[in-house]
Amino acid sequence: MSATTHHETTINAPAGLPLIEIVREFDAEPARVFRAHVDPELFARWVGPRSIETRVEHWDARTGGAWRYTAHRDGEELAAFYGSFHEVRADGRLVQTFTWEGAPDGVALEVMTLEELPGGRTRLRGVSVGESVEARDAMVASGMETGVVEGYEKLDALLAERSSAGR
Amino acid sequence: MSATTHHETTINAPAGLPLIEIVREFDAEPARVFRAHVDPELFARWVGPRSIETRVEHWDARTGGAWRYTAHRDGEELAAFYGSFHEVRADGRLVQTFTWEGAPDGVALEVMTLEELPGGRTRLRGVSVGESVEARDAMVASGMETGVVEGYEKLDALLAERSSAGR
Repeated sequence: MSATTHHETTINAPAGLPLIEIVREFDAEPARVFRAHVDPELFARWVGPRSIETRVEHWDARTGGAWRYTAHRDGEELAAFYGSFHEVRADGRLVQTFTWEGAPDGVALEVMTLEELPGGRTRLRGVSVGESVEARDAMVASGMETGVVEGYEKLDALLAERSSAGR
Repeated sequence: MSATTHHETTINAPAGLPLIEIVREFDAEPARVFRAHVDPELFARWVGPRSIETRVEHWDARTGGAWRYTAHRDGEELAAFYGSFHEVRADGRLVQTFTWEGAPDGVALEVMTLEELPGGRTRLRGVSVGESVEARDAMVASGMETGVVEGYEKLDALLAERSSAGR
């Protein structure tokens, strides 16, 4: 049983707009939350649902770089994703593109910003914008909420572990 | 006086949606229209309003690459833009991100697709998606229509020139 605190993840899909908004707080400073998004070894440890193992295939987390990772269950590749790092700003702004290779004509723009809260905590805001409300609805229907909620719970644990290790 | 045919450029900014849709036909095959978007020397010759000179500062037109160019008038740099090439698909799909450095927190996702028409002609569809309707409205208000319309007229001329040279 983990003693890590899990904050609520707010996922909002506004009617008639092709976007998904996510708000989530973390009990760690913005710099550490940011690092967990740009360091490929840390990222692979928390992203996605609990049932999935993530393998980073390519990762160049700088403005103008690109990335690709695959998702595995029981040794079988279930999905692959790729995109670009449009902007990697160390003060807490990360802008990426995102495509699931199973729907190669789909693409989303993802903007993450981190706000420092009192007590060394962080509020993450994520916006994912797609080409159409239909594509947005398909992403919501795909079960992305489970991946987001479980992923952030794994990130809580990762941040707590590194905190207690004094890093 | 140029004898080049200029087709109408349709620019649509749907109410309540954070996107701009562009439709434009060209009297050249998709492969040549595509090349004019990914070859930096050709691109610099046609993009933007007539009053502007474009200098490509960085250009890596492959999936996962990035780009940057500056706009000059009378030798003075007026603006700089940068982004990533999320996808460069030679059969006529180009997905890029776009930021004007004067508004560094703004970003748009641009998807261009080319459709072959009878007679060796092409229909270009472009969709530019931003984070909010307000940002979209600001881009429309910035005079982007002049740049798009004049740019495509320069592209008509470029395609006609290359055509008559037998390339």
